[in-house]
Amino acid sequence: MATLKQVAAHADVSVQTVSNALNAPHRLRADTLERVNRSIELLNYRPNRNARSLRTSAVELIGYCVPSWPNQTHLVMDQFLHALCAAAERTGRHILLFTAPAGVDGMPTYEDLHARRMVDGFVLSQTETHDPRHGWLKDQGIPFVSFGRVWKETTQPGPWVDVDGAGGSAMAVRHLYETGRRRIAFLGWPKSSGLAEDRVAGWRDACKVLGLPTAGLVVRCREDSIDDGARATAQLLDGGRDIDGIVALSDILALGALRELGRRGLTPGHAVGVTGFDDSPLAEVVSPGLTSLRQPMDQIAEELITILTGPAGEPAERLLQPELVIRGSSAPG
Amino acid sequence: MATLKQVAAHADVSVQTVSNALNAPHRLRADTLERVNRSIELLNYRPNRNARSLRTSAVELIGYCVPSWPNQTHLVMDQFLHALCAAAERTGRHILLFTAPAGVDGMPTYEDLHARRMVDGFVLSQTETHDPRHGWLKDQGIPFVSFGRVWKETTQPGPWVDVDGAGGSAMAVRHLYETGRRRIAFLGWPKSSGLAEDRVAGWRDACKVLGLPTAGLVVRCREDSIDDGARATAQLLDGGRDIDGIVALSDILALGALRELGRRGLTPGHAVGVTGFDDSPLAEVVSPGLTSLRQPMDQIAEELITILTGPAGEPAERLLQPELVIRGSSAPG
Repeated sequence: MATLKQVAAHADVSVQTVSNALNAPHRLRADTLERVNRSIELLNYRPNRNARSLRTSAVELIGYCVPSWPNQTHLVMDQFLHALCAAAERTGRHILLFTAPAGVDGMPTYEDLHARRMVDGFVLSQTETHDPRHGWLKDQGIPFVSFGRVWKETTQPGPWVDVDGAGGSAMAVRHLYETGRRRIAFLGWPKSSGLAEDRVAGWRDACKVLGLPTAGLVVRCREDSIDDGARATAQLLDGGRDIDGIVALSDILALGALRELGRRGLTPGHAVGVTGFDDSPLAEVVSPGLTSLRQPMDQIAEELITILTGPAGEPAERLLQPELVIRGSSAPG
Repeated sequence: MATLKQVAAHADVSVQTVSNALNAPHRLRADTLERVNRSIELLNYRPNRNARSLRTSAVELIGYCVPSWPNQTHLVMDQFLHALCAAAERTGRHILLFTAPAGVDGMPTYEDLHARRMVDGFVLSQTETHDPRHGWLKDQGIPFVSFGRVWKETTQPGPWVDVDGAGGSAMAVRHLYETGRRRIAFLGWPKSSGLAEDRVAGWRDACKVLGLPTAGLVVRCREDSIDDGARATAQLLDGGRDIDGIVALSDILALGALRELGRRGLTPGHAVGVTGFDDSPLAEVVSPGLTSLRQPMDQIAEELITILTGPAGEPAERLLQPELVIRGSSAPG
């Protein structure tokens, strides 16, 4: 059977490029990717997914740190945990939950759990801009995979799976465009959030491609609250730009938009189309229902577990597309 | 050192009564409880909290089944899991998460995890009316403790910890009364829910004690949605009963009440005081903030772990009081 090296020689690329073709295809130019894939096929190369990077131990457990509250709201955490457990169980493993201080202060807890062989590796989530955990774990040689990117770093230590926020925003813009909207605003968060910047970039790019205006159509809310979403919507409606669509960075901000529209006697989904992010339980309990971008939890969990229990060493980066769940808030205007 | 039996003989009660005095004092008449407590003190009896009912195994893990979605919304599940992990860790244990089918179909999964010594015992939650898990686990001799009661059964198999829903509703009624409200309605769920009946009973009792009307002031919503809460509120406001307070069985129904009041130009917290249940993240993101009954998560988790890791055999039943978190939705009218 062919090796990675033979594939690289055949395609006249580096081993790293072949690895990227397998694990982070979006990093490659289309023609390079095609050439590598042809070599993979011709040489019948198959990455050995059975080789286990995690040490075989008596207990097959994967550690997951429960995010602390009340600092953060996790409206879809139960969905994520259910999917993660189910995916781990399909490989004969279980999830061990633990608590740890945020940032580097929590690292000794991770190290201790791994040293005592309580867990084979970790799934990280609630990734933050400049998150220090990834580099630390990589330096210690402790297996992990991240749900979410470390923003604003040129290279991210270790493998990750994430949802394409920019792609999601663009999807929302195209949907609103298709239902007749031509002046689509964006409700976001402060610039310090990498996640927020990713999503606003997707909105901006999609508007430009469709020839829609963007100037003066972004409002950055200080907090992720219904109140701030409503205030930002009022600002947009009073701004004289005659907006007919709103892409909100979160379901909570979108709920604020729906409230402000309702308060002014404007039927959401008719006068102005509104979309949210995450398809949280909130999206279904309001009326009209909120159109929102659902994270593909089962696929996310499956990829995380596959990467963590697969062969080590190959950089794995998976950017998954969210799914637009259409409800009344974006009905044709 | 005195035994349970000696205490029983001294107080002239059964061993079961002494056990109740220790673990379920609310079951005893005040004079019996006092007599037993005096005997306990005189004989210097101390329940042996160090005797471990859970088998000592290599891995000190407690199993918790992640509730399935999307059938249920768990807006405070992250809070519960964080508290449960922290409490387990204070005893040197961790939480093992797993998935299982609902009801008796899931029981083989519990049995298997216990038989393979993956876990020492289980914490159950999302307890349902006539929940079959408790009796099954008890019959198998598998250690467990339940967060939540099995409603509509005369006796519940195994120990439990729960929050006093009736007491919480009564607390909300008294608070609204103290802020000047005299016609306080209740937004609930269908009668089939034991939890809902518990909470409506607390509302009714408190209203009666305070001499407030109850007739025609209960609306049972079919679903736990903002929409149903708003519709029920409209029905109450149009019913000619001039209501000035609403105790809602959930934060989601309460949000519906706030929306309907807002739609009619009535300022929530002024014209009509509104309270919710659970103090979910929703309560803080609306404006005015929603007054809500918070479940004492840390205390709940502490009791669950103490019971599960404590001596077996003694029935333990702990009914904890929720805490009323007051916000703008119930400001003085």
